[in-house]
Amino acid sequence: MKYQYAKRMANLNCPEVGELLKIAENPRILSFAGGVPAPELFPVREFIEASRCVLEESGEAALQYSSTEGYEPLRSWIASRLNSRQGAAFDADNILITSGSQQALDLTGKVFLDEGDTVLCESPTYLAAISAFKAYGCKFQEISTDDDGMLPEALEAGIRSAECPKVIYTIPEFQNPTGNTWSADRRENLARLAAKYKLVVLEDNPYGELRFEGTPLPSVKSFDQAGCVFMLGTFSKILAPGYRIGWVAGEKETIKKYVMAKQGADLQCNTLAQREVCKYLELYDIDQHIQEIRKVYKKRRDTIVQAMETEFPKEVAFTRPQGGLFTWVELPESVNARDVLAKCLEKNVAFVPGGSFYPNIPRENTLRINYSNLPEDKLVWGIKRIAEAIQESL
Amino acid sequence: MKYQYAKRMANLNCPEVGELLKIAENPRILSFAGGVPAPELFPVREFIEASRCVLEESGEAALQYSSTEGYEPLRSWIASRLNSRQGAAFDADNILITSGSQQALDLTGKVFLDEGDTVLCESPTYLAAISAFKAYGCKFQEISTDDDGMLPEALEAGIRSAECPKVIYTIPEFQNPTGNTWSADRRENLARLAAKYKLVVLEDNPYGELRFEGTPLPSVKSFDQAGCVFMLGTFSKILAPGYRIGWVAGEKETIKKYVMAKQGADLQCNTLAQREVCKYLELYDIDQHIQEIRKVYKKRRDTIVQAMETEFPKEVAFTRPQGGLFTWVELPESVNARDVLAKCLEKNVAFVPGGSFYPNIPRENTLRINYSNLPEDKLVWGIKRIAEAIQESL
Repeated sequence: MKYQYAKRMANLNCPEVGELLKIAENPRILSFAGGVPAPELFPVREFIEASRCVLEESGEAALQYSSTEGYEPLRSWIASRLNSRQGAAFDADNILITSGSQQALDLTGKVFLDEGDTVLCESPTYLAAISAFKAYGCKFQEISTDDDGMLPEALEAGIRSAECPKVIYTIPEFQNPTGNTWSADRRENLARLAAKYKLVVLEDNPYGELRFEGTPLPSVKSFDQAGCVFMLGTFSKILAPGYRIGWVAGEKETIKKYVMAKQGADLQCNTLAQREVCKYLELYDIDQHIQEIRKVYKKRRDTIVQAMETEFPKEVAFTRPQGGLFTWVELPESVNARDVLAKCLEKNVAFVPGGSFYPNIPRENTLRINYSNLPEDKLVWGIKRIAEAIQESL
Repeated sequence: MKYQYAKRMANLNCPEVGELLKIAENPRILSFAGGVPAPELFPVREFIEASRCVLEESGEAALQYSSTEGYEPLRSWIASRLNSRQGAAFDADNILITSGSQQALDLTGKVFLDEGDTVLCESPTYLAAISAFKAYGCKFQEISTDDDGMLPEALEAGIRSAECPKVIYTIPEFQNPTGNTWSADRRENLARLAAKYKLVVLEDNPYGELRFEGTPLPSVKSFDQAGCVFMLGTFSKILAPGYRIGWVAGEKETIKKYVMAKQGADLQCNTLAQREVCKYLELYDIDQHIQEIRKVYKKRRDTIVQAMETEFPKEVAFTRPQGGLFTWVELPESVNARDVLAKCLEKNVAFVPGGSFYPNIPRENTLRINYSNLPEDKLVWGIKRIAEAIQESL
């Protein structure tokens, strides 16, 4: 039969990224495409122990339904961490556990976005945030962004010119896709403008714990007097993404709305997974674990930056991130990264062309490279292949 | 600050059920309110073993990101089961793993419902399906329903009079909240009408495996020549709800749309949970386990029906389900179940008043009783208290 899909489905059609990630699953392909942590760093033995403890100590409760808000001790841990490291002043009721921070993006759309509302975002921005928000029929206003974050004048002008501006979406630390980090001034300015125009800020911070060097900067939340800022976080990059445990944190009144939206969306997160992550945090030292991840990723960042400096033609620019998983490459305007990708796939190398990271007008001469999930020799080998493909396209 | 929520949030306000389930968590309250399986039946030891095997055999893969569609061996198992027991003809690509079948309801809204579309449903119907669909701005057309399902004439008249009818939502086996089961004729008629009017049928079947007596009936899907019917299922009632593993099954073209919608919603289900459930199915005999659950729940059904027959005033009607978790009580028109609930809470007994199960005009003289999660002596004690409260309200 001919199905009558909802209108929104016409906008969600971003099959190329799905296809690409499937291609990247092919073991013969060397993939810079995902945003995937290194699995050899997962604390597998520790999770065997955590899982055994949870099921032996409280198996019935761990396998049963539980509250939509999430496991209270886990929410308390997250609140304390945000208070001590991000300048928040939260308790457990400021936190909702979500199925990865991706679900917090979707719920944000559900809670705040009517058709025709505008989301202001960095240019470029995280592609799966674009699909999450698009499902609610919003428009996007891309704000000109340099290495220090959104340009303040551009942001204020964007807010004033946007139709029904509602949400400012940002990843201030080691952004996906650019790897760039906002300066403290820009963060303060963002919080100020959001309060002035009564907009919600989504401060999405999946990579903040993975800083390789330099001083941690104050969060946007720490400048927030008005309660505009909602913080998104996840255990995916510091423990393991397979558990799908993330969170949204902010003013209690609004968190209650998120809880209502989550109730209809999937009732609750996996009870067992929440307790296992919490048990891990009780039994082991996550900071020591994060320290190890940082060491490995820093080395990979060093290797890839050096390889790009050596191999890439001089016309190619790229970012040198101080943390996180990604570097962003800008080719000369005349080169289309999709053509480079086609050449790379012939050489069994994959990456994500940058066009998909722009909600309105794609800049097709860009590409994103993930360096967290390959050993150094493969990073170098792969960058050489990408460099060859770029040369062939010049 | 004053937050500008999306308009849909005004319709999602169903705080009483959330509040009630929280009250029911109070250990002093004897609760008939949830839809909660008996935790003493959870195969805890088996899951300890399944979890250990998965993490030892493939820990890195089990903790990593995985495909949105879900774990292939688990999808294949589900396809085989639906083929052998429900008259489907599926393979793995007809199945999407969802975060409980609740998420399949939400994704159905995302894939099919525009603002103003109509969902046709039984009257009464599952309350969290109402909230899931409401988030997409749809209307509801309640179809008059007797003990054998929707009345055929009422269904066809409803389809013809509805504004933009899109989806027919039904729970044909041991319905939530009534416990009633559709006759085979009514199922065939539903499939026929859906094909005639090109509507999607959601055949939600969380309780079908929990039949205490009588012969299994053919699924609505088994009558579906046109590809109208999408089947929702879950491991929540036959294994454990804490894992949040459910599915939607149907034509591949449409399942791809669901996959796209899920990608934006939460990327994927918990990798580990999918593999653990699959490992359980490999190592143990789920049919033997289901047999045990059936035995226990049948005894509880027998006990509660007998207690209601003995204790309830003659003016009170109730259903005698052949399976599942619920019985449905109709009080005389003049009695409001919310008043009865207030009296019951004073006696430390809770249930869900029936009004919330009607999307349009609530019938407040009804209530739902869950009998799966209490031992027999407590069932009897609790029914006596409810009977007292009804007497006091007459």
